[in-house]
Amino acid sequence: MSNGKVIRMSRLFADDRKAMILPVDHGINLGRVEGLEQPWSLLGQAATLGCDGVLMTLGVAERSGELFRLSSSPVRILGLDSMQVSEINKVTMCANVATPADAIREACDIVKILMPWDENYEQRIRITEHVASVVAAAGPFELPVMVEPVVTYTRDYSQVQDAEIDGARVAMELGADIIKMRFHGDDGLLRRVCDELKTPVVILGGAFSLSTIQVLESVARSLDAGAAGIAIGRNVWQRPERTRDVLLEVLVELVHGEITLSEAIKRVKKQCAEEAIQEAHRGNE
Amino acid sequence: MSNGKVIRMSRLFADDRKAMILPVDHGINLGRVEGLEQPWSLLGQAATLGCDGVLMTLGVAERSGELFRLSSSPVRILGLDSMQVSEINKVTMCANVATPADAIREACDIVKILMPWDENYEQRIRITEHVASVVAAAGPFELPVMVEPVVTYTRDYSQVQDAEIDGARVAMELGADIIKMRFHGDDGLLRRVCDELKTPVVILGGAFSLSTIQVLESVARSLDAGAAGIAIGRNVWQRPERTRDVLLEVLVELVHGEITLSEAIKRVKKQCAEEAIQEAHRGNE
Amino acid sequence: MSNGKVIRMSRLFADDRKAMILPVDHGINLGRVEGLEQPWSLLGQAATLGCDGVLMTLGVAERSGELFRLSSSPVRILGLDSMQVSEINKVTMCANVATPADAIREACDIVKILMPWDENYEQRIRITEHVASVVAAAGPFELPVMVEPVVTYTRDYSQVQDAEIDGARVAMELGADIIKMRFHGDDGLLRRVCDELKTPVVILGGAFSLSTIQVLESVARSLDAGAAGIAIGRNVWQRPERTRDVLLEVLVELVHGEITLSEAIKRVKKQCAEEAIQEAHRGNE
Amino acid sequence: MSNGKVIRMSRLFADDRKAMILPVDHGINLGRVEGLEQPWSLLGQAATLGCDGVLMTLGVAERSGELFRLSSSPVRILGLDSMQVSEINKVTMCANVATPADAIREACDIVKILMPWDENYEQRIRITEHVASVVAAAGPFELPVMVEPVVTYTRDYSQVQDAEIDGARVAMELGADIIKMRFHGDDGLLRRVCDELKTPVVILGGAFSLSTIQVLESVARSLDAGAAGIAIGRNVWQRPERTRDVLLEVLVELVHGEITLSEAIKRVKKQCAEEAIQEAHRGNE
Amino acid sequence: MSNGKVIRMSRLFADDRKAMILPVDHGINLGRVEGLEQPWSLLGQAATLGCDGVLMTLGVAERSGELFRLSSSPVRILGLDSMQVSEINKVTMCANVATPADAIREACDIVKILMPWDENYEQRIRITEHVASVVAAAGPFELPVMVEPVVTYTRDYSQVQDAEIDGARVAMELGADIIKMRFHGDDGLLRRVCDELKTPVVILGGAFSLSTIQVLESVARSLDAGAAGIAIGRNVWQRPERTRDVLLEVLVELVHGEITLSEAIKRVKKQCAEEAIQEAHRGNE
Repeated sequence: MSNGKVIRMSRLFADDRKAMILPVDHGINLGRVEGLEQPWSLLGQAATLGCDGVLMTLGVAERSGELFRLSSSPVRILGLDSMQVSEINKVTMCANVATPADAIREACDIVKILMPWDENYEQRIRITEHVASVVAAAGPFELPVMVEPVVTYTRDYSQVQDAEIDGARVAMELGADIIKMRFHGDDGLLRRVCDELKTPVVILGGAFSLSTIQVLESVARSLDAGAAGIAIGRNVWQRPERTRDVLLEVLVELVHGEITLSEAIKRVKKQCAEEAIQEAHRGNE
Repeated sequence: MSNGKVIRMSRLFADDRKAMILPVDHGINLGRVEGLEQPWSLLGQAATLGCDGVLMTLGVAERSGELFRLSSSPVRILGLDSMQVSEINKVTMCANVATPADAIREACDIVKILMPWDENYEQRIRITEHVASVVAAAGPFELPVMVEPVVTYTRDYSQVQDAEIDGARVAMELGADIIKMRFHGDDGLLRRVCDELKTPVVILGGAFSLSTIQVLESVARSLDAGAAGIAIGRNVWQRPERTRDVLLEVLVELVHGEITLSEAIKRVKKQCAEEAIQEAHRGNE
Repeated sequence: MSNGKVIRMSRLFADDRKAMILPVDHGINLGRVEGLEQPWSLLGQAATLGCDGVLMTLGVAERSGELFRLSSSPVRILGLDSMQVSEINKVTMCANVATPADAIREACDIVKILMPWDENYEQRIRITEHVASVVAAAGPFELPVMVEPVVTYTRDYSQVQDAEIDGARVAMELGADIIKMRFHGDDGLLRRVCDELKTPVVILGGAFSLSTIQVLESVARSLDAGAAGIAIGRNVWQRPERTRDVLLEVLVELVHGEITLSEAIKRVKKQCAEEAIQEAHRGNE
Repeated sequence: MSNGKVIRMSRLFADDRKAMILPVDHGINLGRVEGLEQPWSLLGQAATLGCDGVLMTLGVAERSGELFRLSSSPVRILGLDSMQVSEINKVTMCANVATPADAIREACDIVKILMPWDENYEQRIRITEHVASVVAAAGPFELPVMVEPVVTYTRDYSQVQDAEIDGARVAMELGADIIKMRFHGDDGLLRRVCDELKTPVVILGGAFSLSTIQVLESVARSLDAGAAGIAIGRNVWQRPERTRDVLLEVLVELVHGEITLSEAIKRVKKQCAEEAIQEAHRGNE
Repeated sequence: MSNGKVIRMSRLFADDRKAMILPVDHGINLGRVEGLEQPWSLLGQAATLGCDGVLMTLGVAERSGELFRLSSSPVRILGLDSMQVSEINKVTMCANVATPADAIREACDIVKILMPWDENYEQRIRITEHVASVVAAAGPFELPVMVEPVVTYTRDYSQVQDAEIDGARVAMELGADIIKMRFHGDDGLLRRVCDELKTPVVILGGAFSLSTIQVLESVARSLDAGAAGIAIGRNVWQRPERTRDVLLEVLVELVHGEITLSEAIKRVKKQCAEEAIQEAHRGNE
């Protein structure tokens, strides 16, 4: 890995080579998604609470420069595409909406693309060439590329896991610098994959479905298995604001090994309890 | 053949004009393929055991420079594509994922492309133009191009053999510098082809299906028939690790005429016997 | 000022909009210059002692990536030229040796050029067009350009001051984002210039000629007059190593308003006294 | 340093990171120079006797491919220029006669340029920009650039040494990957320079002026001081053929630490004695 | 004239087809010129007092966007060059520092270039080609080009007038959309020129040399003779601030025929008298 890429990677995976990334790019395909109706104050919190990176789209990047003026500001990661899934045709397609040159112009240090890896051969050809073309376009800028292999309409769970892990491997062979993928619950398998890929793996969260404790446990296990960090959005910001902020804060500390899992759970539980009491009060009024 | 190409060819087909190539590029389309879950230690072995060339993808090339610092290191051969087969549509497509310029930048001395040669005329037009375009792009660098004609969804065996041999001839006419192809068991035909093409032919292995003895016999017959070497992956590294290494070592010596076929078989048999004994012990524990 | 430039400027002029820059680019025209025979350990110190930016050449940038992996690492500023002065012909010429694209590839956030502004009309035309061309080339990357107007062979002191201030103004009109210039001792004039230019002005040091106290006083006065920081090389690193480090440390704090001038002087004086005692001891041995 | 460059550097500085280079590029400016009237058999010897690199021009590179087909063949280093010195005008100019693209086409793994560094300001501007432009042109190929700072018409010896060492530093700042320079006899200074530059330094020989023993002693001292190898031409091949070959052989072993200086001297002395006897015999016939 | 250009011209020459332009681009070659040390408050006044256009450089354009947000804001005219005069060599040269594309990016509706038209044939060839090239570059944007023919080192007055009028004609033939030129005092000649050129002519002011009354009289005569407006800088803003503002205000009204010359003179005289009284008071203090 050459110099410019080493430095840009280090901006995200600083000091201890771990990174807590907050993704707020969901509006590009989900629209006015709950919890992210306006991303600006959340972006402010990301900076305040110590996130290492923020994943955003070009429109948000252009409107949020002022939030990133402090030396402690998170790294900006630019999402280059928008995914649409057709359940009927069993096709997942990505609209390509930004380029590595846009990222450089916006002082984003990393670009991120999706890699739908369901079993449709034409689609695989198309996305394989697309990943390669983004890697090629990012090359002269020494701009790291984060690739997220994802299976969307496949329903058989073990097939999903295998396909995403195969996709991660294909992404590495194509020159991806960071893999963003799901943790499917098999710690040993994740450990082997992290070891084999010679590439930092960050674990995503997916649709809002987990309790705070499940989130924390899953993160702790992923990190134990060798993950280089996390990129969890909806399972963080689709919660009540105060809980969201405590969860964010605790996740930052957990990722960087500053607290144990049990301390993390205790702090989040305390906040949830307070939230419940306030909710009860609000009900009484 | 001009000067630069002569020298790069000589780096692979050194001294005796024979080459033992280890392909480890399968992850680009097969993902986390068995036996190649992590290619790094295998690459280290390739160097240690005397392989002449290693076929790899861009992502692996970028992560393995340190393994190729010794003067005895194998030549790096860069795979430029990734094949996907649609059994249903009877179409084989290649995603083009790297270029001759990438190879030069990565100090790879040869580039390699697939040439699906089933009987689909549109596909033949497309791949014919593609082979020509890669030859053209490699030209100003004097970078040799290895072409692998391959038939995928055709089922009639004799048609497969004819089509692949036709493909080899088309590749030569398009300017290929090395042909990588299957040995279909007809020694006389292979001898005629090797003689006619005026181009080194290296024999591939394909899916894991042969016993070690079948591999060795097939290699010996190919070399007798005039093949310039071999490029066998899964039939080598989808075996138990110790057997794999003995097989690798023996193949290197066989290709370079340092041992006879019977010596080769003896050494591999001995290893397989030891493996069986250990396996039995493991079963007893 | 657009977004990417705002963020890159903020990386240098962080939080309080002040910057302490350590220039170590002198080897490009002075060769093995005293105090900078090997710049590597000094670069390490710059990071440790809290410098905000480091000015370097391409060769040093390429060899020092590992020193810039921490989140607290200084911003890398890439010098794009090398100046040669002909006293006889009264011509100052710059060799252009790197480009904004090199800076992006090396993850340098700012580029820096010289602007010789002696009264030679042809030279002024040439350098005016050159500054404009660098600004134009940096534009699509949103990469800030630091310009240093400098008068070299003119001897009349007041002419020098006027010419350099005129040069600073011309640089701003041409689109410079940061002005690097000498402080000529006229506090009121510097104050007016800093106010007029709407562009951060950083004060340079020049040839080793000042006592540590003169350096500190000059810096304090420049900052009072509105300078956005300093870029002092030889007057820092052409001193005994321990004094150099104390001076560096004190300058960082002075620039960021963390200590007063008198505190700064006290600390440096203490170090100089220790140095003198040790020197005496060394003499006695 | 990125991957392709690492591998190409390793081809020259193999295994023990030392290199014995034989320069045979003198014809480009000296014409039919004595001892090199026909360079072909000498090139053959270079390969046979174990040289690590050979420095040649484009014309010789194009005519010598067949000599470099063995796996043990030296690395080809392409000289890109031809120097002419005007004693009267005190100007040294280089004709630029080949490019990095030529080197790639000819399978040369390194390019080499001169850097005349006498005190003529215009010339310094020109050569500074030229070195930078070759580094820039070699960059996309990841092709290492060897730079030779040289002082030609300056006569004051200590000035020569200082100027060449300054030139070496300037070359590093411009991005040179290897420095080729004279050893001026100051072991301590060479040691410091090798340490400071973070760049392999190979020692040149210059005009034929040294006895074989002086050559060997000078090489041994240079290596002790940290030089990464030697590139000695006329002081090797302007000797009787048999002595030349013994000297070559011994130098290879000396550079790689396989023999001591005293062993080296003994072997060369023996050969010289034999040469003298044969000469006497020839005289008697 | 096509549509886009018609609309952009109309933004400057609004409603009555007259325009009062304030040039503040002098810093690009004169540096920190008196009266324009900081152009920002003057630009604010230009907007408030009703100027139709402001001539500025790229650096000032980039820093002054906020001053041009009102619908009544003046049109921004971008200067594309910087002139340097060599009295000794009798050569006037322009550094080209910005392009029509820069103007579009900065929302400047007109670009302006100089056209030195002294009798040096080589220079005339060069500048003729340059004017044509700017017209060509502005074409696809439908961006009007203002050209200023100017004679600098010629001393014979009648030759100057003839040369500048010839230059104006050449500019028109080259495709200039607006001519900026001196009024030499010959009303009839100016009338004929304005009539012949079918191109709006705006009258410049030149170096500070005229009394306020001379300025007003000259403007009134130019307008009577058919000039489409004025572009007077130093003869406006190199006066005391309050006088400057009254003069600006009166010139706007004079250009647009809202007051007569005698009313204009009366108002400016009144201000000058007040200024004199205040000056006297200041003297008494």
